[in-house]
Amino acid sequence: MAGRQPVAIVFDTFGTVVDWRTSLIADLTAYGTQRGISADWVALADAWRAAYQPSMDRVRKGLQPWTTLDALHRASLDRLVMDFAILGLTEGDLIHINRVWHRLHPWPDAIPGLTRLKTRFIIGPLSNGNVSLLLNMAKFAGIPWDTIFGSDLFGHFKPDPETYLGVARLLDLRPDQVMMAAAHNGDLAAARSHGLMTGFFPRPAEYGPHQKRDYAPDQDWDIVAADIQDMAAQLGV
Amino acid sequence: MAGRQPVAIVFDTFGTVVDWRTSLIADLTAYGTQRGISADWVALADAWRAAYQPSMDRVRKGLQPWTTLDALHRASLDRLVMDFAILGLTEGDLIHINRVWHRLHPWPDAIPGLTRLKTRFIIGPLSNGNVSLLLNMAKFAGIPWDTIFGSDLFGHFKPDPETYLGVARLLDLRPDQVMMAAAHNGDLAAARSHGLMTGFFPRPAEYGPHQKRDYAPDQDWDIVAADIQDMAAQLGV
Repeated sequence: MAGRQPVAIVFDTFGTVVDWRTSLIADLTAYGTQRGISADWVALADAWRAAYQPSMDRVRKGLQPWTTLDALHRASLDRLVMDFAILGLTEGDLIHINRVWHRLHPWPDAIPGLTRLKTRFIIGPLSNGNVSLLLNMAKFAGIPWDTIFGSDLFGHFKPDPETYLGVARLLDLRPDQVMMAAAHNGDLAAARSHGLMTGFFPRPAEYGPHQKRDYAPDQDWDIVAADIQDMAAQLGV
Repeated sequence: MAGRQPVAIVFDTFGTVVDWRTSLIADLTAYGTQRGISADWVALADAWRAAYQPSMDRVRKGLQPWTTLDALHRASLDRLVMDFAILGLTEGDLIHINRVWHRLHPWPDAIPGLTRLKTRFIIGPLSNGNVSLLLNMAKFAGIPWDTIFGSDLFGHFKPDPETYLGVARLLDLRPDQVMMAAAHNGDLAAARSHGLMTGFFPRPAEYGPHQKRDYAPDQDWDIVAADIQDMAAQLGV
Protein backbone atom coordinates (compact mmCIF):
# COMPACT_ATOMS: atom_id res chain seq x y z
CA MET A 1 0.00 0.00 0.00
CA ALA A 2 1.70 3.14 -1.23
CA GLY A 3 -0.52 5.75 0.40
CA ARG A 4 -1.44 6.88 3.87
CA GLN A 5 -1.51 4.28 6.64
CA PRO A 6 -4.12 3.92 9.36
CA VAL A 7 -3.34 4.21 13.09
CA ALA A 8 -5.80 1.49 14.05
CA ILE A 9 -7.29 -1.44 12.15
CA VAL A 10 -10.56 -2.92 13.35
CA PHE A 11 -11.75 -6.27 12.09
CA ASP A 12 -15.09 -7.78 11.42
CA THR A 13 -14.88 -11.11 13.24
CA PHE A 14 -17.42 -13.79 12.23
CA GLY A 15 -16.24 -15.03 8.86
CA THR A 16 -13.44 -12.48 8.59
CA VAL A 17 -11.18 -13.64 11.43
CA VAL A 18 -12.83 -16.89 12.52
CA ASP A 19 -14.35 -19.73 10.52
CA TRP A 20 -17.69 -19.91 12.34
CA ARG A 21 -19.27 -22.59 10.11
CA THR A 22 -16.55 -25.24 10.34
CA SER A 23 -16.17 -24.48 14.05
CA LEU A 24 -19.90 -24.79 14.78
CA ILE A 25 -20.28 -28.02 12.86
CA ALA A 26 -17.28 -29.65 14.54
CA ASP A 27 -18.19 -28.45 18.03
CA LEU A 28 -21.89 -29.32 17.87
CA THR A 29 -21.33 -32.68 16.21
CA ALA A 30 -18.81 -33.68 18.87
CA TYR A 31 -21.09 -32.45 21.64
CA GLY A 32 -24.08 -34.32 20.22
CA THR A 33 -22.06 -37.52 20.06
CA GLN A 34 -20.76 -37.06 23.59
CA ARG A 35 -24.24 -36.39 24.94
CA GLY A 36 -25.88 -39.07 22.77
CA ILE A 37 -28.20 -36.51 21.17
CA SER A 38 -28.89 -36.97 17.52
CA ALA A 39 -29.58 -34.04 15.20
CA ASP A 40 -28.62 -32.61 11.83
CA TRP A 41 -25.99 -30.35 13.35
CA VAL A 42 -24.85 -29.07 9.94
CA ALA A 43 -28.35 -27.88 9.10
CA LEU A 44 -28.71 -26.41 12.59
CA ALA A 45 -25.47 -24.44 12.16
CA ASP A 46 -26.63 -23.01 8.84
CA ALA A 47 -30.12 -22.22 10.10
CA TRP A 48 -28.73 -20.59 13.23
CA ARG A 49 -26.50 -18.32 11.18
CA ALA A 50 -29.40 -17.58 8.82
CA ALA A 51 -31.28 -16.21 11.84
CA TYR A 52 -28.42 -13.81 12.63
CA GLN A 53 -29.27 -10.80 10.45
CA PRO A 54 -33.07 -11.00 10.96
CA SER A 55 -32.60 -11.15 14.74
CA MET A 56 -30.39 -8.04 14.70
CA ASP A 57 -32.74 -6.29 12.29
CA ARG A 58 -35.43 -6.24 14.97
CA VAL A 59 -33.04 -4.30 17.22
CA ARG A 60 -31.78 -2.07 14.39
CA LYS A 61 -35.36 -1.12 13.52
CA GLY A 62 -36.31 -0.45 17.13
CA LEU A 63 -38.81 -3.32 17.27
CA GLN A 64 -36.89 -4.67 20.24
CA PRO A 65 -34.72 -2.83 22.79
CA TRP A 66 -30.95 -3.33 22.84
CA THR A 67 -30.18 -7.03 23.17
CA THR A 68 -26.72 -8.62 23.12
CA LEU A 69 -25.81 -11.05 20.38
CA ASP A 70 -25.48 -13.79 23.03
CA ALA A 71 -29.13 -13.25 23.92
CA LEU A 72 -30.23 -13.10 20.27
CA HIS A 73 -28.32 -16.32 19.60
CA ARG A 74 -30.06 -17.98 22.53
CA ALA A 75 -33.53 -16.92 21.39
CA SER A 76 -32.82 -18.24 17.89
CA LEU A 77 -31.40 -21.47 19.30
CA ASP A 78 -34.47 -22.08 21.46
CA ARG A 79 -36.69 -21.68 18.41
CA LEU A 80 -34.50 -23.89 16.20
CA VAL A 81 -34.33 -26.67 18.78
CA MET A 82 -38.13 -26.78 18.57
CA ASP A 83 -38.16 -26.52 14.75
CA PHE A 84 -35.59 -29.30 14.42
CA ALA A 85 -37.32 -31.36 17.13
CA ILE A 86 -34.03 -31.95 18.95
CA LEU A 87 -34.87 -33.80 22.15
CA GLY A 88 -33.11 -34.24 25.46
CA LEU A 89 -31.24 -30.94 25.78
CA THR A 90 -31.06 -29.61 29.33
CA GLU A 91 -30.71 -25.94 30.25
CA GLY A 92 -27.02 -26.65 30.86
CA ASP A 93 -26.73 -28.09 27.35
CA LEU A 94 -28.37 -25.03 25.86
CA ILE A 95 -26.04 -22.69 27.73
CA HIS A 96 -23.06 -24.71 26.55
CA ILE A 97 -24.30 -24.86 22.95
CA ASN A 98 -25.06 -21.13 22.87
CA ARG A 99 -21.49 -20.42 23.88
CA VAL A 100 -20.19 -22.25 20.80
CA TRP A 101 -19.94 -18.72 19.35
CA HIS A 102 -17.25 -18.09 22.00
CA ARG A 103 -15.33 -21.17 20.80
CA LEU A 104 -14.67 -20.36 17.15
CA HIS A 105 -11.38 -21.16 15.45
CA PRO A 106 -9.44 -18.61 13.42
CA TRP A 107 -8.64 -18.99 9.75
CA PRO A 108 -5.02 -20.19 9.42
CA ASP A 109 -3.64 -16.77 8.39
CA ALA A 110 -5.45 -14.84 11.14
CA ILE A 111 -3.20 -15.22 14.19
CA PRO A 112 0.12 -14.82 12.34
CA GLY A 113 -1.25 -11.89 10.32
CA LEU A 114 -2.71 -10.11 13.34
CA THR A 115 0.47 -10.70 15.32
CA ARG A 116 2.41 -8.90 12.58
CA LEU A 117 -0.12 -6.05 12.32
CA LYS A 118 -0.10 -5.57 16.10
CA THR A 119 3.56 -4.55 15.99
CA ARG A 120 2.66 -1.31 14.19
CA PHE A 121 -1.09 -0.76 14.48
CA ILE A 122 -3.74 -0.80 17.18
CA ILE A 123 -5.85 -3.88 16.38
CA GLY A 124 -9.25 -4.91 17.68
CA PRO A 125 -12.48 -6.54 16.58
CA LEU A 126 -15.39 -4.33 15.56
CA SER A 127 -18.05 -6.95 15.63
CA ASN A 128 -21.72 -7.45 16.30
CA GLY A 129 -20.63 -9.77 19.07
CA ASN A 130 -20.76 -8.50 22.64
CA VAL A 131 -17.55 -7.80 24.55
CA SER A 132 -17.69 -10.99 26.61
CA LEU A 133 -18.27 -13.16 23.54
CA LEU A 134 -15.34 -11.57 21.69
CA LEU A 135 -13.09 -11.67 24.73
CA ASN A 136 -13.82 -15.31 25.49
CA MET A 137 -13.23 -16.10 21.81
CA ALA A 138 -9.89 -14.28 21.89
CA LYS A 139 -8.79 -16.20 24.99
CA PHE A 140 -9.99 -19.51 23.45
CA ALA A 141 -8.36 -18.95 20.07
CA GLY A 142 -5.31 -16.91 21.06
CA ILE A 143 -6.29 -13.83 19.06
CA PRO A 144 -3.91 -11.03 20.11
CA TRP A 145 -6.30 -8.04 20.14
CA ASP A 146 -5.15 -4.83 21.80
CA THR A 147 -8.71 -4.17 22.93
CA ILE A 148 -12.25 -5.33 22.16
CA PHE A 149 -14.93 -3.24 20.46
CA GLY A 150 -18.13 -5.17 21.06
CA SER A 151 -21.50 -3.92 19.90
CA ASP A 152 -22.65 -3.56 23.52
CA LEU A 153 -20.21 -0.66 23.91
CA PHE A 154 -22.38 1.24 21.46
CA GLY A 155 -25.80 -0.34 21.97
CA HIS A 156 -25.92 -0.74 18.20
CA PHE A 157 -25.16 -3.37 15.59
CA LYS A 158 -23.29 -2.70 12.37
CA PRO A 159 -23.99 -1.08 9.99
CA ASP A 160 -25.46 1.54 12.34
CA PRO A 161 -23.15 4.59 12.24
CA GLU A 162 -22.75 4.53 16.04
CA THR A 163 -20.46 1.52 15.69
CA TYR A 164 -17.95 2.86 13.13
CA LEU A 165 -17.96 6.37 14.56
CA GLY A 166 -17.98 5.06 18.12
CA VAL A 167 -14.72 3.24 17.56
CA ALA A 168 -13.07 6.39 16.22
CA ARG A 169 -14.36 8.33 19.24
CA LEU A 170 -13.07 5.76 21.76
CA LEU A 171 -9.71 5.69 19.97
CA ASP A 172 -9.64 9.53 19.88
CA LEU A 173 -8.87 9.28 16.16
CA ARG A 174 -10.45 10.78 13.09
CA PRO A 175 -12.48 8.19 11.14
CA ASP A 176 -9.92 8.33 8.32
CA GLN A 177 -7.21 7.18 10.75
CA VAL A 178 -9.13 3.94 11.33
CA MET A 179 -9.31 1.09 8.83
CA MET A 180 -12.22 -1.34 8.81
CA ALA A 181 -11.08 -4.78 7.63
CA ALA A 182 -13.68 -7.30 6.54
CA ALA A 183 -14.45 -10.14 4.16
CA HIS A 184 -17.84 -8.49 3.54
CA ASN A 185 -18.29 -5.69 1.03
CA GLY A 186 -21.40 -4.40 2.78
CA ASP A 187 -19.56 -3.79 6.05
CA LEU A 188 -16.84 -1.89 4.18
CA ALA A 189 -19.33 0.20 2.22
CA ALA A 190 -20.91 1.33 5.50
CA ALA A 191 -17.51 2.02 7.06
CA ARG A 192 -16.42 4.05 4.01
CA SER A 193 -19.64 6.06 4.08
CA HIS A 194 -18.60 7.25 7.56
CA GLY A 195 -15.06 8.12 6.48
CA LEU A 196 -13.12 5.06 7.60
CA MET A 197 -10.39 3.46 5.51
CA THR A 198 -11.19 -0.01 4.21
CA GLY A 199 -9.40 -3.33 3.76
CA PHE A 200 -10.90 -6.37 2.04
CA PHE A 201 -9.89 -10.00 1.73
CA PRO A 202 -12.24 -12.76 0.59
CA ARG A 203 -13.31 -15.77 2.63
CA PRO A 204 -14.83 -17.87 -0.15
CA ALA A 205 -15.42 -20.85 2.16
CA GLU A 206 -17.22 -18.89 4.90
CA TYR A 207 -20.69 -20.25 4.08
CA GLY A 208 -19.46 -23.60 2.74
CA PRO A 209 -21.65 -24.68 -0.19
CA HIS A 210 -24.09 -21.83 0.55
CA GLN A 211 -21.75 -18.91 -0.20
CA LYS A 212 -23.48 -16.40 -2.46
CA ARG A 213 -21.37 -13.25 -2.38
CA ASP A 214 -18.15 -11.54 -1.36
CA TYR A 215 -15.89 -13.61 -3.59
CA ALA A 216 -14.29 -10.38 -4.79
CA PRO A 217 -14.18 -6.68 -3.94
CA ASP A 218 -17.15 -4.54 -5.04
CA GLN A 219 -15.31 -1.23 -4.76
CA ASP A 220 -11.74 0.10 -4.86
CA TRP A 221 -11.12 -0.54 -1.20
CA ASP A 222 -7.94 1.01 0.21
CA ILE A 223 -6.47 -2.46 0.52
CA VAL A 224 -7.50 -5.59 -1.33
CA ALA A 225 -5.57 -8.59 -0.04
CA ALA A 226 -5.60 -12.37 -0.25
CA ASP A 227 -5.85 -12.73 3.53
CA ILE A 228 -4.59 -11.12 6.76
CA GLN A 229 -1.01 -12.20 6.17
CA ASP A 230 -1.08 -10.53 2.76
CA MET A 231 -2.70 -7.44 4.30
CA ALA A 232 0.22 -7.23 6.75
CA ALA A 233 2.66 -7.57 3.86
CA GLN A 234 0.92 -4.81 1.89
CA LEU A 235 1.09 -2.56 4.95
CA GLY A 236 4.82 -3.25 5.21
CA VAL A 237 4.93 -5.19 8.45
CA MET B 1 -4.68 -18.14 47.84
CA ALA B 2 -6.54 -21.20 49.02
CA GLY B 3 -10.09 -20.11 48.22
CA ARG B 4 -12.16 -19.35 45.20
CA GLN B 5 -10.45 -17.80 42.18
CA PRO B 6 -11.74 -14.96 40.01
CA VAL B 7 -12.42 -15.31 36.28
CA ALA B 8 -11.18 -11.82 35.50
CA ILE B 9 -8.79 -9.44 37.26
CA VAL B 10 -9.05 -5.73 36.56
CA PHE B 11 -6.30 -3.38 37.60
CA ASP B 12 -6.19 0.16 38.72
CA THR B 13 -3.51 1.67 36.51
CA PHE B 14 -1.96 4.97 37.66
CA GLY B 15 0.31 4.04 40.55
CA THR B 16 -0.77 0.40 40.57
CA VAL B 17 0.63 -0.75 37.20
CA VAL B 18 2.63 2.26 36.06
CA ASP B 19 4.95 4.62 37.94
CA TRP B 20 3.39 7.89 36.83
CA ARG B 21 5.57 10.19 38.96
CA THR B 22 8.99 8.96 37.87
CA SER B 23 7.73 8.74 34.28
CA LEU B 24 6.32 12.28 34.27
CA ILE B 25 9.43 13.80 35.82
CA ALA B 26 11.80 12.05 33.38
CA ASP B 27 9.64 12.78 30.32
CA LEU B 28 8.95 16.43 31.10
CA THR B 29 12.51 17.19 32.18
CA ALA B 30 13.90 15.71 28.97
CA TYR B 31 11.33 17.56 26.87
CA GLY B 32 12.05 20.87 28.62
CA THR B 33 15.77 20.44 27.96
CA GLN B 34 15.16 19.51 24.33
CA ARG B 35 12.90 22.52 23.81
CA GLY B 36 15.04 24.87 25.90
CA ILE B 37 12.13 25.61 28.24
CA SER B 38 13.00 25.98 31.87
CA ALA B 39 10.55 25.01 34.63
CA ASP B 40 10.34 23.11 37.89
CA TRP B 41 9.09 19.96 36.18
CA VAL B 42 9.09 17.95 39.42
CA ALA B 43 6.79 20.46 41.09
CA LEU B 44 4.64 20.58 37.96
CA ALA B 45 4.28 16.78 37.98
CA ASP B 46 3.19 16.78 41.62
CA ALA B 47 0.81 19.72 41.18
CA TRP B 48 -0.70 18.14 38.07
CA ARG B 49 -1.40 14.91 39.90
CA ALA B 50 -2.77 16.88 42.88
CA ALA B 51 -5.36 18.34 40.48
CA TYR B 52 -6.49 14.83 39.45
CA GLN B 53 -9.08 14.02 42.12
CA PRO B 54 -10.55 17.55 42.35
CA SER B 55 -10.98 17.67 38.57
CA MET B 56 -12.84 14.33 38.55
CA ASP B 57 -14.89 15.37 41.58
CA ARG B 58 -16.55 18.08 39.52
CA VAL B 59 -17.74 15.38 37.11
CA ARG B 60 -18.67 12.94 39.87
CA LYS B 61 -20.80 15.61 41.55
CA GLY B 62 -22.51 16.60 38.33
CA LEU B 63 -21.01 20.12 38.31
CA GLN B 64 -19.59 19.36 34.87
CA PRO B 65 -20.86 16.94 32.20
CA TRP B 66 -18.89 13.82 31.34
CA THR B 67 -15.33 14.77 30.41
CA THR B 68 -12.50 12.37 29.57
CA LEU B 69 -9.42 12.29 31.74
CA ASP B 70 -7.37 13.51 28.76
CA ALA B 71 -9.52 16.65 28.68
CA LEU B 72 -9.38 17.12 32.46
CA HIS B 73 -5.59 16.71 32.34
CA ARG B 74 -5.41 19.36 29.62
CA ALA B 75 -7.53 21.84 31.55
CA SER B 76 -5.37 21.34 34.64
CA LEU B 77 -2.20 21.67 32.58
CA ASP B 78 -3.34 24.94 31.02
CA ARG B 79 -4.00 26.36 34.47
CA LEU B 80 -0.70 25.10 35.92
CA VAL B 81 1.34 26.47 33.03
CA MET B 82 -0.06 29.89 33.97
CA ASP B 83 0.44 29.34 37.71
CA PHE B 84 4.04 28.20 37.19
CA ALA B 85 4.63 30.97 34.62
CA ILE B 86 6.13 28.53 32.13
CA LEU B 87 6.80 30.50 28.98
CA GLY B 88 7.25 29.56 25.34
CA LEU B 89 5.01 26.49 25.05
CA THR B 90 3.19 26.19 21.74
CA GLU B 91 -0.13 24.40 21.25
CA GLY B 92 1.90 21.50 19.83
CA ASP B 93 4.01 21.41 22.99
CA LEU B 94 0.91 21.36 25.17
CA ILE B 95 -0.60 18.49 23.17
CA HIS B 96 2.64 16.56 23.48
CA ILE B 97 2.99 17.28 27.20
CA ASN B 98 -0.61 16.34 27.91
CA ARG B 99 0.00 12.97 26.31
CA VAL B 100 2.76 12.22 28.80
CA TRP B 101 0.01 10.27 30.61
CA HIS B 102 0.01 7.93 27.58
CA ARG B 103 3.79 7.41 27.98
CA LEU B 104 4.06 6.01 31.49
CA HIS B 105 6.45 3.22 32.38
CA PRO B 106 5.36 0.12 34.30
CA TRP B 107 6.75 -0.89 37.67
CA PRO B 108 9.36 -3.65 37.11
CA ASP B 109 7.09 -6.50 38.27
CA ALA B 110 4.08 -5.39 36.20
CA ILE B 111 4.74 -6.84 32.74
CA PRO B 112 6.10 -10.21 33.93
CA GLY B 113 3.35 -10.52 36.53
CA LEU B 114 0.56 -9.61 34.11
CA THR B 115 1.98 -11.93 31.47
CA ARG B 116 1.70 -14.78 33.98
CA LEU B 117 -1.81 -13.82 35.09
CA LYS B 118 -2.98 -13.55 31.47
CA THR B 119 -2.38 -17.28 30.98
CA ARG B 120 -5.26 -18.12 33.31
CA PHE B 121 -7.34 -14.97 33.84
CA ILE B 122 -8.92 -12.25 31.76
CA ILE B 123 -6.89 -9.14 32.56
CA GLY B 124 -7.61 -5.50 31.84
CA PRO B 125 -7.26 -2.05 33.35
CA LEU B 126 -10.22 -0.54 35.20
CA SER B 127 -8.97 2.98 35.34
CA ASN B 128 -10.16 6.55 35.36
CA GLY B 129 -8.19 6.96 32.14
CA ASN B 130 -10.10 6.96 28.86
CA VAL B 131 -9.79 4.03 26.46
CA SER B 132 -7.41 5.81 24.07
CA LEU B 133 -5.11 6.87 26.91
CA LEU B 134 -4.96 3.34 28.33
CA LEU B 135 -4.56 1.76 24.91
CA ASN B 136 -1.76 4.09 23.86
CA MET B 137 -0.09 3.45 27.21
CA ALA B 138 -0.36 -0.30 26.70
CA LYS B 139 1.18 -0.04 23.23
CA PHE B 140 3.94 2.27 24.55
CA ALA B 141 4.79 0.15 27.57
CA GLY B 142 4.01 -3.34 26.26
CA ILE B 143 1.27 -4.07 28.78
CA PRO B 144 -0.46 -7.29 27.65
CA TRP B 145 -4.10 -6.44 28.46
CA ASP B 146 -6.83 -8.66 27.02
CA THR B 147 -9.10 -5.63 26.73
CA ILE B 148 -9.35 -2.07 28.03
CA PHE B 149 -11.97 -0.82 30.48
CA GLY B 150 -11.67 2.96 30.29
CA SER B 151 -13.93 5.28 32.26
CA ASP B 152 -15.43 6.60 29.01
CA LEU B 153 -17.11 3.20 28.50
CA PHE B 154 -19.20 4.00 31.55
CA GLY B 155 -19.29 7.80 31.54
CA HIS B 156 -18.23 7.61 35.18
CA PHE B 157 -15.06 7.76 37.24
CA LYS B 158 -14.25 5.37 40.07
CA PRO B 159 -15.50 5.00 42.74
CA ASP B 160 -18.90 5.47 41.06
CA PRO B 161 -20.68 2.07 41.08
CA GLU B 162 -21.22 2.21 37.30
CA THR B 163 -17.51 1.44 36.82
CA TYR B 164 -17.18 -1.70 38.97
CA LEU B 165 -20.60 -3.04 38.03
CA GLY B 166 -20.15 -2.00 34.41
CA VAL B 167 -17.08 -4.20 34.07
CA ALA B 168 -18.95 -7.20 35.44
CA ARG B 169 -21.80 -6.51 33.00
CA LEU B 170 -19.48 -6.22 29.98
CA LEU B 171 -17.71 -9.42 31.04
CA ASP B 172 -21.08 -11.15 31.61
CA LEU B 173 -19.81 -12.21 35.02
CA ARG B 174 -21.17 -11.85 38.51
CA PRO B 175 -19.31 -9.16 40.48
CA ASP B 176 -17.83 -11.85 42.74
CA GLN B 177 -16.18 -13.45 39.70
CA VAL B 178 -14.19 -10.26 39.10
CA MET B 179 -11.23 -9.17 41.20
CA MET B 180 -10.24 -5.53 41.50
CA ALA B 181 -6.48 -5.19 42.00
CA ALA B 182 -5.07 -1.90 43.25
CA ALA B 183 -2.39 -0.30 45.37
CA HIS B 184 -5.10 1.93 46.85
CA ASN B 185 -7.28 0.79 49.72
CA GLY B 186 -10.06 3.22 48.82
CA ASP B 187 -10.50 1.73 45.36
CA LEU B 188 -10.72 -1.76 46.85
CA ALA B 189 -13.20 -0.70 49.53
CA ALA B 190 -15.51 0.63 46.80
CA ALA B 191 -15.05 -2.50 44.69
CA ARG B 192 -15.81 -4.73 47.67
CA SER B 193 -18.93 -2.73 48.51
CA HIS B 194 -20.25 -3.74 45.07
CA GLY B 195 -19.37 -7.40 45.52
CA LEU B 196 -16.05 -7.68 43.67
CA MET B 197 -13.11 -9.67 44.95
CA THR B 198 -10.09 -7.59 45.95
CA GLY B 199 -6.31 -7.80 45.59
CA PHE B 200 -3.87 -5.36 47.19
CA PHE B 201 -0.16 -4.73 46.83
CA PRO B 202 1.55 -1.57 48.06
CA ARG B 203 3.39 0.95 45.91
CA PRO B 204 5.19 2.88 48.65
CA ALA B 205 7.14 5.01 46.16
CA GLU B 206 4.13 6.10 44.09
CA TYR B 207 4.09 9.67 45.40
CA GLY B 208 7.85 9.88 46.06
CA PRO B 209 8.52 11.94 49.19
CA HIS B 210 4.83 12.94 49.32
CA GLN B 211 3.32 9.49 49.94
CA LYS B 212 0.84 9.67 52.81
CA ARG B 213 -1.14 6.41 52.71
CA ASP B 214 -1.55 2.93 51.29
CA TYR B 215 1.66 1.52 52.76
CA ALA B 216 -0.34 -1.46 54.01
CA PRO B 217 -3.75 -3.06 53.60
CA ASP B 218 -6.64 -1.49 55.55
CA GLN B 219 -8.91 -4.53 55.32
CA ASP B 220 -8.62 -8.30 54.90
CA TRP B 221 -8.52 -8.12 51.10
CA ASP B 222 -8.88 -11.46 49.31
CA ILE B 223 -5.25 -11.21 48.28
CA VAL B 224 -2.51 -9.15 49.89
CA ALA B 225 0.68 -9.41 47.88
CA ALA B 226 4.08 -7.76 47.61
CA ASP B 227 3.56 -6.90 43.94
CA ILE B 228 1.98 -8.32 40.75
CA GLN B 229 4.53 -11.12 40.47
CA ASP B 230 3.70 -12.20 44.01
CA MET B 231 -0.02 -11.92 43.23
CA ALA B 232 0.49 -14.31 40.30
CA ALA B 233 2.37 -16.71 42.57
CA GLN B 234 -0.41 -16.60 45.17
CA LEU B 235 -2.96 -17.37 42.45
CA GLY B 236 -0.88 -20.36 41.39
CA VAL B 237 0.26 -19.18 37.95
